[in-house]
Amino acid sequence: MSPHSSDNNVSVLLKEYSAHGKVSTDLYDVQSGPVPNASSLKPNEVLVHVRYVSVDPYLRMRLSGVDGPYSRAFKVGHPISSHGVGEVIASTSSDYKEGDRVTGGAFPWSKYATFDVTPEVAKASGFSKLEGVLAKAPLEWHIGVLGMPSFTAWYGLNVIAQPKKGETIVVSAAAGAVGQAVVQLAKSLGLYVVAAAGSDEKVAYLKDELKADAVFNYKKVDSYSATLKGLCPRGIDIYFDNVGGEFLDAVLEHVNKNARIAACGAISQYQKEKGETYGIKNVMSVVGNEVRWEGFIIMYHYKSHYEAFVKDITERVKNGTFNYKLHISEGIETAPQAMVDMMSGKNFGKTCVKV
Amino acid sequence: MSPHSSDNNVSVLLKEYSAHGKVSTDLYDVQSGPVPNASSLKPNEVLVHVRYVSVDPYLRMRLSGVDGPYSRAFKVGHPISSHGVGEVIASTSSDYKEGDRVTGGAFPWSKYATFDVTPEVAKASGFSKLEGVLAKAPLEWHIGVLGMPSFTAWYGLNVIAQPKKGETIVVSAAAGAVGQAVVQLAKSLGLYVVAAAGSDEKVAYLKDELKADAVFNYKKVDSYSATLKGLCPRGIDIYFDNVGGEFLDAVLEHVNKNARIAACGAISQYQKEKGETYGIKNVMSVVGNEVRWEGFIIMYHYKSHYEAFVKDITERVKNGTFNYKLHISEGIETAPQAMVDMMSGKNFGKTCVKV
Repeated sequence: MSPHSSDNNVSVLLKEYSAHGKVSTDLYDVQSGPVPNASSLKPNEVLVHVRYVSVDPYLRMRLSGVDGPYSRAFKVGHPISSHGVGEVIASTSSDYKEGDRVTGGAFPWSKYATFDVTPEVAKASGFSKLEGVLAKAPLEWHIGVLGMPSFTAWYGLNVIAQPKKGETIVVSAAAGAVGQAVVQLAKSLGLYVVAAAGSDEKVAYLKDELKADAVFNYKKVDSYSATLKGLCPRGIDIYFDNVGGEFLDAVLEHVNKNARIAACGAISQYQKEKGETYGIKNVMSVVGNEVRWEGFIIMYHYKSHYEAFVKDITERVKNGTFNYKLHISEGIETAPQAMVDMMSGKNFGKTCVKV
Repeated sequence: MSPHSSDNNVSVLLKEYSAHGKVSTDLYDVQSGPVPNASSLKPNEVLVHVRYVSVDPYLRMRLSGVDGPYSRAFKVGHPISSHGVGEVIASTSSDYKEGDRVTGGAFPWSKYATFDVTPEVAKASGFSKLEGVLAKAPLEWHIGVLGMPSFTAWYGLNVIAQPKKGETIVVSAAAGAVGQAVVQLAKSLGLYVVAAAGSDEKVAYLKDELKADAVFNYKKVDSYSATLKGLCPRGIDIYFDNVGGEFLDAVLEHVNKNARIAACGAISQYQKEKGETYGIKNVMSVVGNEVRWEGFIIMYHYKSHYEAFVKDITERVKNGTFNYKLHISEGIETAPQAMVDMMSGKNFGKTCVKV
């Protein structure tokens, strides 16, 4: 479990903020340095060999330099961090030992990292030891099938949208980290699933492998509204919103009475230049159709629902009824490019970095 | 109860549609004619002396000529209709007799009108006989304290917003038909009430008579956002949205986690010219603050909640803890001007016409 004596630590640090617009790889510094020394750990620290880190749209907001309602700005000169999973290689805490698998919401983009595991500190960042069935699952599951976006899909669909068999659901960014899980879960619940993605390859995957009922490449249609109207002959009962903007506005034109919008993000708006934010015009439809439009941030719901999610999803994976496509980028130094590619939709499946 | 033999019927008919923009009195024809003859009633019809009709913002949509999600266009050459209350002066139905007080959602703007009271027809338009405590209440109560906007306030606050004592609620159009009821109910539930209206006189009424905690004249502030920030030191937990548009967008900048938006209308947008609809930009706040934004149309909730509402409000009126300001326009021929005035905020209290 010890690092090779010849191994270096490699970290991705924030060089500068980007307030608006598209991110580039220029925002980061990739630095090499020595692996932290196990003998220099302070009390209640662990040294972790980071194995996978997650690359997610919400990170865009943390690169802007401004604290948002649910995102803290990263610090210049410090490593980027995100959900991650790894193995303990040294510990000064009686709660952790070499070989323990650990996960958390603030894993630095580094090959090796130390963590303060004082209970209150660990709790604040969601750092924990994987135990029981979770410890036995393949490591990448904690970014994939059991990861944050998959849990987002499960929670948004079951707890927020509360689907009824036969209803029509529209899923945007449907081949992405959250979308692919929504599509599969929705199909298994007997919904009519209309899925949109940004390439013909993704659309084929949604249709052929995930068995969506209707699909379209949103980059190739003239009008979201006309397309949705055509593909949703019984209207829209649920919209699982990952993208916001024009797509959301078009959905509002075709929602049924008592439709639900489960809103977990707005990737279409994250890279807009200042003042370019799209304004949603069809809000009267929320009144007229008695729509329940509900936002959620998954990090608040681990305590209440993660256990039920793991139970359900583990069962589905064992049955072969739930697959999860990862878009794996190899080497922590590739993380900046992986972020750029994901924000422009070049990923196919949930983006992560194999450190 | 019979009409004076010398009395004429007077009706307000739709002359032409107005697709967008401000309504004027030119859209209507006011016509005189004979009072319908009691002896010419068909089976299961009643002749009603209409006493009050309600003038409400949603009628704007019905004047546009286009069926909306919750509004049917009026027909050119036919009377405008709205909620109303009156007395039966002749009947061919065994269910109704002379002197019965009746109410419904489709009272023509006429001094006298006949209604088909076949059960299924009556049910479809919400036509019913006032019985028990309802029959004893002053007639104008059915437009006022017990009317549709008051019920909208009660339902939106209790059922949609589900307030907790000490929370901050913002009410727009707070001196209007819905708003004045929201303010009083919210105060009685121990909320911190921030109320906005469009004249100094209305603002004084909200502060001095309805005891709102903070008030402002929205026509006199430079920035809704800065004003709301200043008046809501603990942020906004509930927004009772009667107006939509910029006000709603500003509220979204200051909502707390798990805020609720009870949306029953968007009067600020009803008279916009085509293409002028305001686009809501701060929708990311719905995600980040886990906001539940829920629209409702009160007509769907009479069956489930009207009885509880009447019980609660009747008690409050008896206790002297609930007042309801009516803006009464005298004579059915004044209804077109009353509509124009209400849409521009010249009314003070809930607009109705004493026929």
